Amino acid sequence: MSLGDTPDALDEFAHDLPDGVNVFQALGELLRHQPQVTIIKLAGMARGGGAEFVASADMTFAAIGRAGIGQVEALMGIVPGGGGTQYLATRVGRNRALEAVLSADLYDAKTAERYGWVNRAVPADELDDIVDRLARNIAALPEGVIAAAKRAIPPEDLAEGLLRENDAWTGQIIRPAAAQLIRDGLAHGAQTPDGERDLEGLLRRLAG
Amino acid sequence: MSLGDTPDALDEFAHDLPDGVNVFQALGELLRHQPQVTIIKLAGMARGGGAEFVASADMTFAAIGRAGIGQVEALMGIVPGGGGTQYLATRVGRNRALEAVLSADLYDAKTAERYGWVNRAVPADELDDIVDRLARNIAALPEGVIAAAKRAIPPEDLAEGLLRENDAWTGQIIRPAAAQLIRDGLAHGAQTPDGERDLEGLLRRLAG
Amino acid sequence: MSLGDTPDALDEFAHDLPDGVNVFQALGELLRHQPQVTIIKLAGMARGGGAEFVASADMTFAAIGRAGIGQVEALMGIVPGGGGTQYLATRVGRNRALEAVLSADLYDAKTAERYGWVNRAVPADELDDIVDRLARNIAALPEGVIAAAKRAIPPEDLAEGLLRENDAWTGQIIRPAAAQLIRDGLAHGAQTPDGERDLEGLLRRLAG
Repeated sequence: MSLGDTPDALDEFAHDLPDGVNVFQALGELLRHQPQVTIIKLAGMARGGGAEFVASADMTFAAIGRAGIGQVEALMGIVPGGGGTQYLATRVGRNRALEAVLSADLYDAKTAERYGWVNRAVPADELDDIVDRLARNIAALPEGVIAAAKRAIPPEDLAEGLLRENDAWTGQIIRPAAAQLIRDGLAHGAQTPDGERDLEGLLRRLAG
Repeated sequence: MSLGDTPDALDEFAHDLPDGVNVFQALGELLRHQPQVTIIKLAGMARGGGAEFVASADMTFAAIGRAGIGQVEALMGIVPGGGGTQYLATRVGRNRALEAVLSADLYDAKTAERYGWVNRAVPADELDDIVDRLARNIAALPEGVIAAAKRAIPPEDLAEGLLRENDAWTGQIIRPAAAQLIRDGLAHGAQTPDGERDLEGLLRRLAG
Repeated sequence: MSLGDTPDALDEFAHDLPDGVNVFQALGELLRHQPQVTIIKLAGMARGGGAEFVASADMTFAAIGRAGIGQVEALMGIVPGGGGTQYLATRVGRNRALEAVLSADLYDAKTAERYGWVNRAVPADELDDIVDRLARNIAALPEGVIAAAKRAIPPEDLAEGLLRENDAWTGQIIRPAAAQLIRDGLAHGAQTPDGERDLEGLLRRLAG
């Protein structure tokens, strides 16, 4: 989110990007294609790039009453540009993906489960045990099983969608309004613990 | 549903149809490809072509205790022919789409949400506020965001499926039994407020 | 599951397999492509090949408190090899499919419905009535409707995925560890009523 202020922050990563993805998408794709099993315990709020990171992992378990997930980008004049539109559409379908992107709302654990955005919403005080047990069980599987499962159920090929997303994102991020909204957000504490508590409210007030 | 009686009612629209879709599908595709965001508030019953209309919109919010949605066509000897089979399969998967089409049942708001047929089931007395807030928030988004979101998450390409659906629909609508069932339904009040209250029951009795 | 002991048990079926599928996949594909409507009443536990059989049918209704479904193969050192990985991914998405395959857990009716693994979880004492009514209603549909619905909503083309699955499965089943785990499981009652009550526990203890 600080790209508006430090536009060259990611230049060093940009040198050896895979073809057809921007630097943000490359991070999501890197995680989505890991040979390891990636499991996210979501007990706080994941927004924007954080929500994209969550959706690029293999599995997510979300704490009821604590977890929130949202693609807040629209309030900054852009759309998710790190794979989020494609990861969402793949998980929840076009209708709910459009809703999430355009509402820019924060979704609680139970709604995120009902939409398929996360694997499951679980009681907050059971989250650690549930994920620990799952991770230990997976780690104890006989040799080769994880690789075989990932070979049988590979990541979807999102190449075309990522190009469309990058085009859509680029067309917005170059607008002066987006840079202004991002700067205003930062100036009003969008990346402080206080500001993040109701980031959507803060950004809606700035845009209004 | 009155096509049986007035087979030329749609002739005027039929002149400049897009390639590869019938006149009913063209309506759904027109709505599904709108540049605007289309949101449906479903507080009554949407069946047949009405259900197809709902499923071709970007988002649907359904009132618990009031909303119902169903593809009733099977009871008239046909299948949905205005995109409904494809919109359903895209939203709820093949298994539940087959169930909806072949059961011809009316689905309540909560079941429709669990299946992914609608975005969300909400308390009936909150429906207006929830959708108004969403629509206002979307309308207040910075310039270009809606178009960018629709570019990043475009409508699925359903061309092949729509051809299959049209073939399947055509093969049934030409049968005398379908014309007879549709005529009988109309004669018994299928399009009156009374008849629509339990349309499935009315049609099952006629077919039985 | 007894393939470890009787590797030639399926030789007679193997003579006229369709191209590109193994003998287990051929069974699932045969069911998935039936012209009839196939509905499963799940009131017990379906694991491994049983779970694959369930997922290859058109619809499944599961009894709350009684039904369980699970892909237990990982605990035997393999992955589902009869279409299960593809049927799961198609129904529940990659994230939940990976979870089901790698957790090897048994999923109850309500969770299976929330994931989309089954059409619906219903009260156990209503399962028979619900499915009977549905089956009778479908059987009473006018001529041609079932075929038309299946033509409009055909089985997904899973050919590539089934090849990947077979490769992944073959790479594991040839390992001595898999044969050993399967033999140990059978020796410890994995296919007895007692052993099946907590098959996951039994297999985890053997692998641990």
